[in-house]
Amino acid sequence: MPGVDDGAARPPSDQRHTATIHDVAAAAGVTIGTVSKALSGRGKLRPETRQRVHAVAERLSYRPNDLAHSLRRGRTFTVGLLTSDLHGRFSLPLLAGIENAMGEARISVFLCNGGGDPSRERQHLESLLAKRVDGLIVAGARTDPRPAVEVGSAGPPVLYAFARTADPRALCLIPDNFQGGRLAASHLVAAGRRNIAHVTGPEEFEGARARKAGMEAALADHGLPFPTSRLAHGTWTEAFGYLAAARLIEADRAVDAIFCGSDLLARGAIDALRERGVRVPDDVAIVGFDNWPIVSATTRPPLSTVDMNLEALGRLAGRYLLDLVEGQSHVGTLRQPCSLVCRASCGGKDCTPCSETEDELIHW
Amino acid sequence: MPGVDDGAARPPSDQRHTATIHDVAAAAGVTIGTVSKALSGRGKLRPETRQRVHAVAERLSYRPNDLAHSLRRGRTFTVGLLTSDLHGRFSLPLLAGIENAMGEARISVFLCNGGGDPSRERQHLESLLAKRVDGLIVAGARTDPRPAVEVGSAGPPVLYAFARTADPRALCLIPDNFQGGRLAASHLVAAGRRNIAHVTGPEEFEGARARKAGMEAALADHGLPFPTSRLAHGTWTEAFGYLAAARLIEADRAVDAIFCGSDLLARGAIDALRERGVRVPDDVAIVGFDNWPIVSATTRPPLSTVDMNLEALGRLAGRYLLDLVEGQSHVGTLRQPCSLVCRASCGGKDCTPCSETEDELIHW
Repeated sequence: MPGVDDGAARPPSDQRHTATIHDVAAAAGVTIGTVSKALSGRGKLRPETRQRVHAVAERLSYRPNDLAHSLRRGRTFTVGLLTSDLHGRFSLPLLAGIENAMGEARISVFLCNGGGDPSRERQHLESLLAKRVDGLIVAGARTDPRPAVEVGSAGPPVLYAFARTADPRALCLIPDNFQGGRLAASHLVAAGRRNIAHVTGPEEFEGARARKAGMEAALADHGLPFPTSRLAHGTWTEAFGYLAAARLIEADRAVDAIFCGSDLLARGAIDALRERGVRVPDDVAIVGFDNWPIVSATTRPPLSTVDMNLEALGRLAGRYLLDLVEGQSHVGTLRQPCSLVCRASCGGKDCTPCSETEDELIHW
Repeated sequence: MPGVDDGAARPPSDQRHTATIHDVAAAAGVTIGTVSKALSGRGKLRPETRQRVHAVAERLSYRPNDLAHSLRRGRTFTVGLLTSDLHGRFSLPLLAGIENAMGEARISVFLCNGGGDPSRERQHLESLLAKRVDGLIVAGARTDPRPAVEVGSAGPPVLYAFARTADPRALCLIPDNFQGGRLAASHLVAAGRRNIAHVTGPEEFEGARARKAGMEAALADHGLPFPTSRLAHGTWTEAFGYLAAARLIEADRAVDAIFCGSDLLARGAIDALRERGVRVPDDVAIVGFDNWPIVSATTRPPLSTVDMNLEALGRLAGRYLLDLVEGQSHVGTLRQPCSLVCRASCGGKDCTPCSETEDELIHW
């Protein structure tokens, strides 16, 4: 059974001795064919022989060589994960979801951080293709179209997660920003608010535009106004949220709710209102977007906010990739619905105040 | 040259046809030995032959098979990265640093998220060992000892990054929490403060204990008091920072500075002081720990804080692992120094106020 044993191929400079199938066969007093049968569980063997081989293999720390197996099977049981954003906070839940789905399928994930640099990404891509990955996930942190990854006609299947490309043959999984915006505004309307403003990020982000469009659709459904004076685009920062909310409330005392395009914006807005004596949610209700617990659980009051369910999105991406690897075909842009996490800032009936008591916080 | 070509081993169920070295040889009208010479750049060949083979290889999207090469070389040019914390914010810069160091060395990183579950970690470990990774980095997010990872005597070298094990043969790279605490307190003393309090996380964290000990050492150096009434241990939360600072300032009006064991604690403390009319830094100076920009750049005033330089720690871990893979020996616990990022909250002479203007934030 040539090819199973890599012992002969190991260069003399390697100081660690790795047990080979020959070592196990010699120590157990059987042929290498018998070792292979015993460890794979295939073929007929007497139970005591199988047991003896297992015991010897364990004693010698012998591990069947996946590389040799891969060559015979034509699959590597690895996939590549090409991220463009290993600094942003969206990456963590997305990565965790992808890794979970792959781990369940006993597939290993190669992590490659392109950092948004096309030449670096190209280099990573070449390396992944040379390793013959079974599939590739391109992960990002925004929904604006990016260049397609070129793997050639013989390349592995590719999928985009929290990233999108204009190529109509591509499969892209992104959060449904429109539905998320609609959900936030509908929730505020259901809580009795009628004069709702919007503070969000730069207009060049598809996410900002889609969330705003969703809010507009919800207000139109209820025949509610949305004058441009109640819309503020700015940076995705807490400082802008603070500033925009302060201006809105000074200019237009009728405003009774603000939907913020991110949790950081919402945090700034809540602080600005509190410091001006405007009560949240009694006078002005606030809904954020992200459900980033480090922000949303610590605003005063705790923040009601839209959750993009990023870990679930990552898990879905992993499962779709397995489909593609097995030859199924999926194309198009799939938008995963957002959900709403109700805390206290929206003033809705379902809202619960923060339950953490002082006692839980203190160890003097 | 048997072993270079995996075409014959590809099972019929695989629908994609990957070009093999035989395809290239046939299309170029040369032997597979000539293809190998032409693509590797080794051996003597006429330039036009070399050029023809390259053109054919490109047309057929032929890629030399890394797996087959690996078997002959006895190295896989892959390392495993076993994280226990793919949710915490420390992981991102650490991962980015590790991945950068490995990418520079053209080594691919297998990402495995144990999630703190020993059986899951064991399963990932088996998978990495079966893939014959050249080395293994165990990454965490705290400096308290964890169980050692067992790879057996024939296993690859292992290194711990922002993680530590009690095994004296292990190499562990962690931030120097003691030095970081000393740095923070010395900075406050240099800025003229004499009555410094400490608000930090639970005592069962080595990080909390070491930062406190560093602060004590700095105060002792200057003959300054540190009564236990000025020490508050609690949860690593903003809410506890708020509560502890409020209590400290009510109980002890002499306090003129607070060193906080995390940026979130510092953020809560700053808000509590501002809302009580205590000016930061004029009345009470604040120094945090983490330099997590999303927090430290947005407190009012912006936060002076200790930076653990986690990306550099990750990069260092990557480079040490390459040393180990090449047979060098390193053992022990290496503590990387922290640095101090001076913004406005410490009231020191070097502090600069936040320079972001309103104009930069707004796109109405």
